[in-house]
Amino acid sequence: MDTLPKGFHIATAGAGFRRPGRDDIGLIVSSRDAAAAGVFTTNVFKAAPVLVAQEQLRLHRNMRGILVNSGQANACTGEEGLRRCREVLRLVGETVHIDPERLLPISTGVIGDQLKMDLWRQALPQLEQSLGKRNAESFARAMMTTDTFPKLTERTLRLSGGEVRLVGMAKGAGMICPNMATMLSVVLCDAAVAVESWRAMFSDGVSRTFNRVSVDGDTSTNDTIYGLANGASGVCVETQADIHLLTQGLEDVLGRLAYMLVQDGEGATKVIHIHVTGAASVGDAEKVARTVGHSPLVKTALYGRDANWGRIVAAVGRSGAEFKAENVNVSLCGVALFHKGQPLPGNHDAALLEPLKARDVAVEIHLGAGSAEYTFLTTDLSHEYVSINADYRT
Amino acid sequence: MDTLPKGFHIATAGAGFRRPGRDDIGLIVSSRDAAAAGVFTTNVFKAAPVLVAQEQLRLHRNMRGILVNSGQANACTGEEGLRRCREVLRLVGETVHIDPERLLPISTGVIGDQLKMDLWRQALPQLEQSLGKRNAESFARAMMTTDTFPKLTERTLRLSGGEVRLVGMAKGAGMICPNMATMLSVVLCDAAVAVESWRAMFSDGVSRTFNRVSVDGDTSTNDTIYGLANGASGVCVETQADIHLLTQGLEDVLGRLAYMLVQDGEGATKVIHIHVTGAASVGDAEKVARTVGHSPLVKTALYGRDANWGRIVAAVGRSGAEFKAENVNVSLCGVALFHKGQPLPGNHDAALLEPLKARDVAVEIHLGAGSAEYTFLTTDLSHEYVSINADYRT
Repeated sequence: MDTLPKGFHIATAGAGFRRPGRDDIGLIVSSRDAAAAGVFTTNVFKAAPVLVAQEQLRLHRNMRGILVNSGQANACTGEEGLRRCREVLRLVGETVHIDPERLLPISTGVIGDQLKMDLWRQALPQLEQSLGKRNAESFARAMMTTDTFPKLTERTLRLSGGEVRLVGMAKGAGMICPNMATMLSVVLCDAAVAVESWRAMFSDGVSRTFNRVSVDGDTSTNDTIYGLANGASGVCVETQADIHLLTQGLEDVLGRLAYMLVQDGEGATKVIHIHVTGAASVGDAEKVARTVGHSPLVKTALYGRDANWGRIVAAVGRSGAEFKAENVNVSLCGVALFHKGQPLPGNHDAALLEPLKARDVAVEIHLGAGSAEYTFLTTDLSHEYVSINADYRT
Repeated sequence: MDTLPKGFHIATAGAGFRRPGRDDIGLIVSSRDAAAAGVFTTNVFKAAPVLVAQEQLRLHRNMRGILVNSGQANACTGEEGLRRCREVLRLVGETVHIDPERLLPISTGVIGDQLKMDLWRQALPQLEQSLGKRNAESFARAMMTTDTFPKLTERTLRLSGGEVRLVGMAKGAGMICPNMATMLSVVLCDAAVAVESWRAMFSDGVSRTFNRVSVDGDTSTNDTIYGLANGASGVCVETQADIHLLTQGLEDVLGRLAYMLVQDGEGATKVIHIHVTGAASVGDAEKVARTVGHSPLVKTALYGRDANWGRIVAAVGRSGAEFKAENVNVSLCGVALFHKGQPLPGNHDAALLEPLKARDVAVEIHLGAGSAEYTFLTTDLSHEYVSINADYRT
């Protein structure tokens, strides 16, 4: 886990944006140009770093680094927020000798406040001194807000030209009071891959992983996922076979990060795997999976380890998907509860007593209307979720 | 509140479907044919009483009564469930001398179980004996599940031909473990009104009231609202002025019942009034209102009395409505927090400390994209909501 892909260097610093005594700035520098991909929040209120990064990725195919800070989101900050974001990139770029247009920014934290430029300036020497002396975990920790553990994963792939390495870091649905959950992720790779291929496999991978998980259905103003592939391994990815292997390895890394985000979702005690099959279309399967996965009644029932097929069925029924009630089957943790639109007899509570204690719970829904399917991961809804987010002020 | 509209009689009985010692059957009988309207759940899994009632309302314009039971939902019960629903109507119809096709059924409670016919049969003498000796509150109580209070409201309207009376009864988003929330409502009226007019004003009224409230976004298999207008007052509603007055009075009654459902939502400590203005279309205004109203982050923040405009803005931004970020204004309890896409300076926490303690909290969102608007009522999300619905089985 300590070994970064070749040619990447990490620095961190503690600026004290929100809490002193911890690093809240992280910097990744690639020693050479890296093919760069980014996927961003679809929220209309996009934070300044999202708007700046989108512009930089339109202008340049390659990047040299990624700069993160936690504690200040720089969201809803208007023109001044954009100006300060660019100024921070300029300062950091000057410090580590990188064109600021080749640095991708990400921020998480309190929204509405302008970046504290004095704290940024004070942190620059520390950032410079630590460059190359920090690892992926340091970077993951610098991004953390209320995450309970740093999220890291890695893969080494054997391609036709040799080994390449992938390392992923993420921060999850932690809340920075008084604001909102933000998901940030970075994947670094030392393969040499054409930027078009890299961007395509990256956005496909994200759509099959991150876009299929949810903690509470809220989309942040700052959600960002970056991927840099710098070619420092000297291994070129050109053949179909190698592209396939890298695509698969990247999707594995993204999938693992996405899983950890759900696992560490606010107040989560469970990871709920919703698998919808037999749908007339992928769109219908997705509708069902998301409706079930966002149902507070389903989420509280599973928190309570309650084999409550009725709530699952009710959510399926209001999803808007096309199917006939009499063709629907539902099972929970592999135990069939509902068949052809009616409950199955049996002591399901007893059969599910142990399986529902597990961290991972599988909900399988078959619509009997076609052959399309969709998988969605979400959390349960716990007392702790309410406590974390209510911040009771009596 | 004791006075029913003319020509209506109520009976109740305790069958012991779920808990002994309380009435769980309620019957309304009209001494004469009543123009009948019904609005039902849109869930694909419709309970047997919903399917039977929809058929009876297609066959007949007028009804003679409404039969409710709590404790057994008769949902997901297949052909046998339909057969038992019809058999219960036949038994009750025989007992009180009404054509069973003129009785509308409603049920709430545990889903998946077949109706207990022996308990129905045993309850018939009590139901017969109590007819005319019970009032609207008795009926409202017989419907209750985990409701904390019976929901009743009434209006007396002065029309050109004299006075008419409206009485509404409802049960709310109470949970029958191990199943789901169900909303049932009944409005009785002694005006003489053409069935087409009555059905039109009823469905319009429901769409402007019940369809604009939510506790947790889940739609039950049994949700039903009935309206009976029997003409027993002798007051005919024919002129445009009278139709307008009755439409308004009916909407008042429906709106009051809908408000009480939210007020008594599971674990609710607040009624949140979301008012979206300045939208490009009513559809866009509705999208914004529902996205904000269903956001667990917004709902937990308001439970915590937290002036968290950031979560409101984030939900607006992911709603899918068309608008420009820089034109959006948000206020909470009349205090402007966000203007033209940016936070307003000021000590909002202090200004909102007292207003956020109130039961009713207003969220105003202006999109600056047009002139359409929408209002939506919902609850906060509390620890108690999780406790009620998790039914922890450790």
